[in-house]
Amino acid sequence: MLTQLRRLLFGSPLPTWRAIHERLPKVLALPILASDALSSVAYASEEMLLILLVAGTAIARSPILVYASGAIVILLAIVATSYRQTVQAYPSGGGAYTVAKENLGIHYGLTAGASLMIGYVLTVAVSIAAGVAALISAFPELAEYRVSLALGGIGIITLGNLRGVRESGLLFALPTYVFLFSAFALIVVGIYRVHTAGLIVRSASVAVPAVEGLTLFLVLRTFSGGCVAMTGTEAISNAVPTFRPPESRNAATTLAWMAAILGTMFMGISYLAWRTGVVPLEHETVVSQIARATFGNTWFYLLIQFATVLILVLAANTSYAGFPWLASVMARDRFLPRQLYNLGDKLVYSNGILLLSLLAGFLVVVFRGDTHRLIPLYAVGVFLSFTLSQSGMVKHFIRTKAPGWRRSVAISGIGAMTTGVVTLVLAVARFVEGAWIVVLLIPLIWVVLWRIHAHYIMVGNQLRLTPEDRFEPLRNTVLVLLPSIHKGVMPALEYATTLSSDVRAIHVETEPDITPLLEERWEQYGGGLPLVILESPYRSLLKPLLEYLDEARQERSDRVITVIIPEFVPVKWWQKILHNQSGLAVKIALLFQRDIVVTNVRYYLQE
Amino acid sequence: MLTQLRRLLFGSPLPTWRAIHERLPKVLALPILASDALSSVAYASEEMLLILLVAGTAIARSPILVYASGAIVILLAIVATSYRQTVQAYPSGGGAYTVAKENLGIHYGLTAGASLMIGYVLTVAVSIAAGVAALISAFPELAEYRVSLALGGIGIITLGNLRGVRESGLLFALPTYVFLFSAFALIVVGIYRVHTAGLIVRSASVAVPAVEGLTLFLVLRTFSGGCVAMTGTEAISNAVPTFRPPESRNAATTLAWMAAILGTMFMGISYLAWRTGVVPLEHETVVSQIARATFGNTWFYLLIQFATVLILVLAANTSYAGFPWLASVMARDRFLPRQLYNLGDKLVYSNGILLLSLLAGFLVVVFRGDTHRLIPLYAVGVFLSFTLSQSGMVKHFIRTKAPGWRRSVAISGIGAMTTGVVTLVLAVARFVEGAWIVVLLIPLIWVVLWRIHAHYIMVGNQLRLTPEDRFEPLRNTVLVLLPSIHKGVMPALEYATTLSSDVRAIHVETEPDITPLLEERWEQYGGGLPLVILESPYRSLLKPLLEYLDEARQERSDRVITVIIPEFVPVKWWQKILHNQSGLAVKIALLFQRDIVVTNVRYYLQE
Repeated sequence: MLTQLRRLLFGSPLPTWRAIHERLPKVLALPILASDALSSVAYASEEMLLILLVAGTAIARSPILVYASGAIVILLAIVATSYRQTVQAYPSGGGAYTVAKENLGIHYGLTAGASLMIGYVLTVAVSIAAGVAALISAFPELAEYRVSLALGGIGIITLGNLRGVRESGLLFALPTYVFLFSAFALIVVGIYRVHTAGLIVRSASVAVPAVEGLTLFLVLRTFSGGCVAMTGTEAISNAVPTFRPPESRNAATTLAWMAAILGTMFMGISYLAWRTGVVPLEHETVVSQIARATFGNTWFYLLIQFATVLILVLAANTSYAGFPWLASVMARDRFLPRQLYNLGDKLVYSNGILLLSLLAGFLVVVFRGDTHRLIPLYAVGVFLSFTLSQSGMVKHFIRTKAPGWRRSVAISGIGAMTTGVVTLVLAVARFVEGAWIVVLLIPLIWVVLWRIHAHYIMVGNQLRLTPEDRFEPLRNTVLVLLPSIHKGVMPALEYATTLSSDVRAIHVETEPDITPLLEERWEQYGGGLPLVILESPYRSLLKPLLEYLDEARQERSDRVITVIIPEFVPVKWWQKILHNQSGLAVKIALLFQRDIVVTNVRYYLQE
Repeated sequence: MLTQLRRLLFGSPLPTWRAIHERLPKVLALPILASDALSSVAYASEEMLLILLVAGTAIARSPILVYASGAIVILLAIVATSYRQTVQAYPSGGGAYTVAKENLGIHYGLTAGASLMIGYVLTVAVSIAAGVAALISAFPELAEYRVSLALGGIGIITLGNLRGVRESGLLFALPTYVFLFSAFALIVVGIYRVHTAGLIVRSASVAVPAVEGLTLFLVLRTFSGGCVAMTGTEAISNAVPTFRPPESRNAATTLAWMAAILGTMFMGISYLAWRTGVVPLEHETVVSQIARATFGNTWFYLLIQFATVLILVLAANTSYAGFPWLASVMARDRFLPRQLYNLGDKLVYSNGILLLSLLAGFLVVVFRGDTHRLIPLYAVGVFLSFTLSQSGMVKHFIRTKAPGWRRSVAISGIGAMTTGVVTLVLAVARFVEGAWIVVLLIPLIWVVLWRIHAHYIMVGNQLRLTPEDRFEPLRNTVLVLLPSIHKGVMPALEYATTLSSDVRAIHVETEPDITPLLEERWEQYGGGLPLVILESPYRSLLKPLLEYLDEARQERSDRVITVIIPEFVPVKWWQKILHNQSGLAVKIALLFQRDIVVTNVRYYLQE
């Protein structure tokens, strides 16, 4: 029944040889892998506006928003150009972790790995939170279910991914294209109406007084807020092996398309936000306000909102391709527990998927599903991984000296320097808003990864066999615990006699009155095995037993002791508390004893 | 270290032969066993006043309070006289459960047992809540810690009882006598001052309008509220065996003393409450108000409050003598889990003590430590057990026909009838206030007790050996799970070879690439044992293994299969999640397989 439920939820298991058929063509890779980056137009302009708003609505409605957006698009062009080189040079994927590890050394690799992991978790949390915000914009009465909706979304994505990536690809390709179509329609129609009819939104009449003046720091913060638009740019380079052959060329093409589409949309939305005088509201997103003003409360407005929700879900889904893969690669290198390395029976990394969902769900709960409280944590890790990856590429090109390497070094070098500066800006400008958490977390994760590694290496050294290693048979002393004599102990005695010629029944005498009767019955049923009675003046079961075990251990040096505990298996679950409590106590006590093997032999009750 | 901590908390263990020396002389038995009944004067009059108050302060200050108290004292005299006969006839203790079971049959016995158990739990909860109320009366700033203080009190009593009864006796005797002395001083001085100086309390000026009129139902409710004064009357009869010899006579004497003292104090407090015009306040008890008016804010007032707190703690402690004993008797009769039967190494029923504390703590939390919300649940169970016990005595005297049996039947008969009527009055009058919980709970507990019994009887029948029962040696097939070949599997292989001549290593092939290497290394290190490779196209560890087990089981009918799982024991706790996860999954899956014994053989990592 459990198996059938599994099938229903996750589909049939897939044999290993089918892995190649799960590869993605470009038209599916774009929606799956680029949706993270593309979807960020749903919240990036709004995040910038929200920061500018502390200087009052007058500043927020100045063209600073558009200039800052332009700067980010230039940054995007630099990073995308640089990453196209990475995709070509590293067809096996692994992204920043692999690139930094191989070129800069393991310490930088782990830093990149930690940054990436944080980035993936935040991609899920931020995208889902933004998706819920888009839904609430259309249906404000859902506002009170914000956290539940976000957790439900994560749950659905988790199930989808545990079923396997191919189904998700087909499922999610359509909404992305609908989003691209509707977003471009919004931008084109919106700009047309701004210029012909002087379109403005409802919140354009809102006036917020300035709390701070317009400082360079505020402009940097605004720029930092917009940098979330670039998160997800690395998704394609981490997932090159999921492309159809020729993997690298397909990935590079997809990357270029992604950057061009993202840059256009982001500039379009920022331009419209400036020209319509929009102000972020608690229960309606900036994009929703612009769309409502442009198309009214029509079916097309609803289409834009639904497409936004769905592409944001798909964006969260991107992490479910990236995170488990990264975790598997790092587990193969023995920096994460081995369970994250194994492919499940659906050819997906089930444990990595579940881990990602748990962490993202935790963030959603802690930050009450609020996009604007999550975003300050988001971009630092991502830009740190950009920097490390591109620095690694600089070293790679210098080392390999392939044709045209000088040009490649220049491109990656400019990318690394630019993103390095932006990383610092992000960490400082958004420190108090939440970036401090990430600044603390990255070294912490680093230490954990390193200690796991050290442990595995140490274990590996201890376990290494030398040619002289042989195992030698031991003598086995078998002790059967005998609380009283009834049918329930017979299987234990039968089993014990198969194990060794040295079998002893042990009775701890907590009630001396019944000992004579016990001995008499043993004569009849004990099959000639010796019965040892252990006195227990304090009615303790454990102490006399542990003392006897110490003695028995000293009888011979080549001896191992097996303690057999007869156990009842009742038919109903609640009956369990009526049995086996003493046996359980003995078992737990013996857990800490060396050279003792504890075995339960079960007796099945019939009703 | 754990042992030392245990010693520190619970004292040294006690050998079985010391049990007789823990018996109680009368001067210790009175404070320990009668404190439950005596302490109820701290809240009984107040409870009655609070009920009368719905008819307004005019009615509450009429002598109805004194008349109702007088009726309860008469009831007390009847019940105490009747119980003196029980104590004489049942020197072995067990109280209502034993008496009802032996004379009326097991179904009535279980009803009495369920009532008693509820009564014991509520004695703890009510007494502790009332003790905290007395403390808050003197120190109102503690009011916000009501629940924490109550839980802390239960915790201290629990520790005291886990240490053993004798120490508690000495510790608690003094405060009870101080309470008796100070309560009588309060009554004598209070009555003197009422008659000479017209003493009134501060709250005498409070006027509360009537919400209901004075009806017969309200008078019955008032009477019901006062019946809590009688709870605890049965404690002595349940604990006859803890008295020094001659147990029955000593217990009967103590019982008579207890009833006389209780009746006098209860009437005295009710009389003072009437004459001083006191009204219950949220943060000050009636007794505290009277004491403050009588003695002012002097050290003697504080002495009264502290003595009240301490006797209420001691009252709660009474249940720690009664409940574990009752549970042990019922467990011996196989109506409760066997763990409740065993004496711990301190000669106390540790499990019963812990169970009682958990249940009482639960009530304290649910009812926010409020005496007045707990009391409506309290008396129903107690009076039902009074009724059943005395009905049992009637049958007992009719059956045994000992000298003077007609008089005995009359006494017990009157007691049974009176308490039976009061039980009905209690259940009806206080039904909506909380008595309904107990009315539902008693049959529920009854059913649970009965099902536990049925289970144990059924198991006993299944386990009974017949003279033909012999155990016969089986053949043992030993399978060692072999994830890979390293030092960590050597102890498992060594151990396996001691068990049987049919030892096979089993490798589930989740990564076919490494199989040839594995086979090669097995040639070198495998000691000539056969290696079975199980194919696993879906990379599942479990399925191929379960299929192989099915096959192996069918090879011979007299075969048992031992599955050996090599296990790592790391040095630090956190390292555990890095190992043994697959082994654990296999172990859980095999839990549900018959005729398979699963054994872990541990390999200890060295750093």
